[in-house]
Amino acid sequence: MTASPFASSTSPLPPFSSPGFGYSLLARDGAARRGRVATAHGTVETPAFMPVGTAGTVKAMTPDAVAATGAEMVLANTYHLMLRPGADRVARLGGLHAMMHWQGPILTDSGGFQAMSLAALRRIDEDGILFQSHIDGTRHMLTPERATAIQDQLDADITMCFDECTPFPATFEVAADSMRRSMRWAARCRVAFRQRPGYGLFGIVQGSVYPELRAESVAALSAIGFDGYAVGGLAVGEGLALMLDTLDATVPLLPADRPRYLMGVGRPIDIVEAVARGIDLFDCVIPTRAGRTGRAYVQGGTLNIRNAGHADDPRPLDPDCTCPACRHHSRAYLHHLFDCGEVLGIMLLTWHNLHHYQQLMASLRAAIAEGRLTEVVAGHRAAAAAAVAAADGGGAGADGDLDSSAGREGASATDGDGAARIKGRSGGRGARTGAGRDLGRAL
Amino acid sequence: MTASPFASSTSPLPPFSSPGFGYSLLARDGAARRGRVATAHGTVETPAFMPVGTAGTVKAMTPDAVAATGAEMVLANTYHLMLRPGADRVARLGGLHAMMHWQGPILTDSGGFQAMSLAALRRIDEDGILFQSHIDGTRHMLTPERATAIQDQLDADITMCFDECTPFPATFEVAADSMRRSMRWAARCRVAFRQRPGYGLFGIVQGSVYPELRAESVAALSAIGFDGYAVGGLAVGEGLALMLDTLDATVPLLPADRPRYLMGVGRPIDIVEAVARGIDLFDCVIPTRAGRTGRAYVQGGTLNIRNAGHADDPRPLDPDCTCPACRHHSRAYLHHLFDCGEVLGIMLLTWHNLHHYQQLMASLRAAIAEGRLTEVVAGHRAAAAAAVAAADGGGAGADGDLDSSAGREGASATDGDGAARIKGRSGGRGARTGAGRDLGRAL
Repeated sequence: MTASPFASSTSPLPPFSSPGFGYSLLARDGAARRGRVATAHGTVETPAFMPVGTAGTVKAMTPDAVAATGAEMVLANTYHLMLRPGADRVARLGGLHAMMHWQGPILTDSGGFQAMSLAALRRIDEDGILFQSHIDGTRHMLTPERATAIQDQLDADITMCFDECTPFPATFEVAADSMRRSMRWAARCRVAFRQRPGYGLFGIVQGSVYPELRAESVAALSAIGFDGYAVGGLAVGEGLALMLDTLDATVPLLPADRPRYLMGVGRPIDIVEAVARGIDLFDCVIPTRAGRTGRAYVQGGTLNIRNAGHADDPRPLDPDCTCPACRHHSRAYLHHLFDCGEVLGIMLLTWHNLHHYQQLMASLRAAIAEGRLTEVVAGHRAAAAAAVAAADGGGAGADGDLDSSAGREGASATDGDGAARIKGRSGGRGARTGAGRDLGRAL
Repeated sequence: MTASPFASSTSPLPPFSSPGFGYSLLARDGAARRGRVATAHGTVETPAFMPVGTAGTVKAMTPDAVAATGAEMVLANTYHLMLRPGADRVARLGGLHAMMHWQGPILTDSGGFQAMSLAALRRIDEDGILFQSHIDGTRHMLTPERATAIQDQLDADITMCFDECTPFPATFEVAADSMRRSMRWAARCRVAFRQRPGYGLFGIVQGSVYPELRAESVAALSAIGFDGYAVGGLAVGEGLALMLDTLDATVPLLPADRPRYLMGVGRPIDIVEAVARGIDLFDCVIPTRAGRTGRAYVQGGTLNIRNAGHADDPRPLDPDCTCPACRHHSRAYLHHLFDCGEVLGIMLLTWHNLHHYQQLMASLRAAIAEGRLTEVVAGHRAAAAAAVAAADGGGAGADGDLDSSAGREGASATDGDGAARIKGRSGGRGARTGAGRDLGRAL
């Protein structure tokens, strides 16, 4: 192996594979993969969706409820946790698993994107990002080394490399410079990462929507060597078509023996399309944020439980769903809870949406294992198109999924969390960082 | 039986006892009673505490969680439910039990107090109360007949008579006039009440802090005849000593074969004192409201989890408590959740406080059955006095229960729900009506 031009200026890194952390490919269907990720805190059946627990809690859910939806791994954020309650404090409390009472694996984002998008003031240079906390104005520095050390303190099963999520749109030159710096940072993260059995480190592919930059980024990360590979810098406003084009140009280049994670995505249709292209892991605030705003995912689209049309409807959200909201309550009652601003409303709709997402993932895993993913994907495409058409037509009671791109969905997802302050940055990945926190603030 | 001067002007009412509804006295210890109330939706071991589910939900709790705390009966409010979602709608949805998915008995308050305290405009006369909704300004009329019919539509296992909760302070004449009208209303409720197996109707004793008026009220209600008797008009600012004096003058007069319910009370020490005087049923927003503000009930007092002193504390709220907050989480994590405004914080503290209250009631039931209530009451008195002393002394980490009277506690409980608009009315009973709803509004 020759040293990558993007790797650390020190000696070439030895081949990398964290002991006890791994990916098993169980079945393929076209480019899609049915697999299993093994970590220090158990295994994750893939393709998998990780609920977002930005500040060490999946909003409005007990950890038992999160597990009851079928989720096996959750995501938390370095940026938020380093500021509150602080990485040292989390470590003293025994790490995130003990603190949250989450028994399964945890993946942490590295904080770069949040420092750039949420912080009041920030400056990025070769060393890292200097920023002021959006909470209390205190100054903090995040570097590849510091971000890696914090994730170690948090006890993350999967540590993400510290990177810059290249804004969209970006010129080729800007995207290239940004990506190459992230690759140099990735090498520093690899050096800083403390290997422990069952704990892994993921690199993040950048390069905006430029296939040659994505290929260069994959090559750079592969040369460094990681336990898994994430595709970053998507769902930031580029739209579904460009996102899928970029996945088409990127995913086939990724090492086949490691898990692949598409960061901050997305709506059900986005996930379906990405699974068909070989992605294994997903996270997004959409189901939890939607739940807090009264939007429920049902077969073929969404409905807004706040609509007056639900006020007398004795039916459950989804007659085939087995979540507590659907087993025990009518749409009329859920409408009433939102009408009154009752916390139970957001608890039940969050639970339902996470359950819906986990059912989606289970159905995709089954479809891959049984070699019928093509037909399942076709069904989702038809349903998504029908929902958009119904919404465009303004049909009575249609209230389908109005968003036609993950980027737009992501953009709306950041309302109220400060991420939207920075134009063009308020995308899907931002959507993962505590978006809609105003809605979750009950106090 | 001669017709009471306060009974309906029509013919004397026949003796009253709803079939399938009843009270069994299982043990006595002094004036205290260990009993069981039988209803259409199951039995309730008494003394019992009913969590408050004003709008058809115990705030921030799933019904399964409420049941898991040990609660057997919950309270809901006619006033709130007639406005939202509407009594007809609740009836179409199969009644409150089906709508809330609460399998056990439900008691509903009759709406009189809330109409007087929450409504923007209201006028009381012999017929009833005309008021404008505090939500949308629509005009509504509540009469004894209408309040009784609504509670029937709601499918309340225990219907409360429509009454006026006499303000405190009140002159003897004002208190007498108010009480006597409530007694005439009680007779009208009795006539309007539709008997069904397992469904009961409770009269409400009024008379402010005047023993002779309380005695007159008990005599009037007893002459009419009810399935149970509530003591109303207390915890409205009179203070603990006057409240207990009034109980001393009232409870011994109540029929021994029917359950006795002290409305809107209270703190643990209030409940302990009232149980010792023969009260069987309680309700109050204090545990749920306190949970939403970060106040946790622990042995011997309360603590405010928002205090910075808890930020690094790895201990549970209460090492002897078996609720999820105490089994799974540290004080430090709960502090963090409140620091971040996370919904899970209010969910966990609400759960803990309701669990604490149910444990208190279980311990009182056991103490009565085993003839050791006197000693248990003495222990609670000592702990409450120590907590007040610690708070007065401002000792580090004392944060005991600062409130020395149920009335004051009740008064603070109504902040944010409009009840406090009316001076002198914002007491313990108001505390039952959705107090602190601003805190519970997560949307």
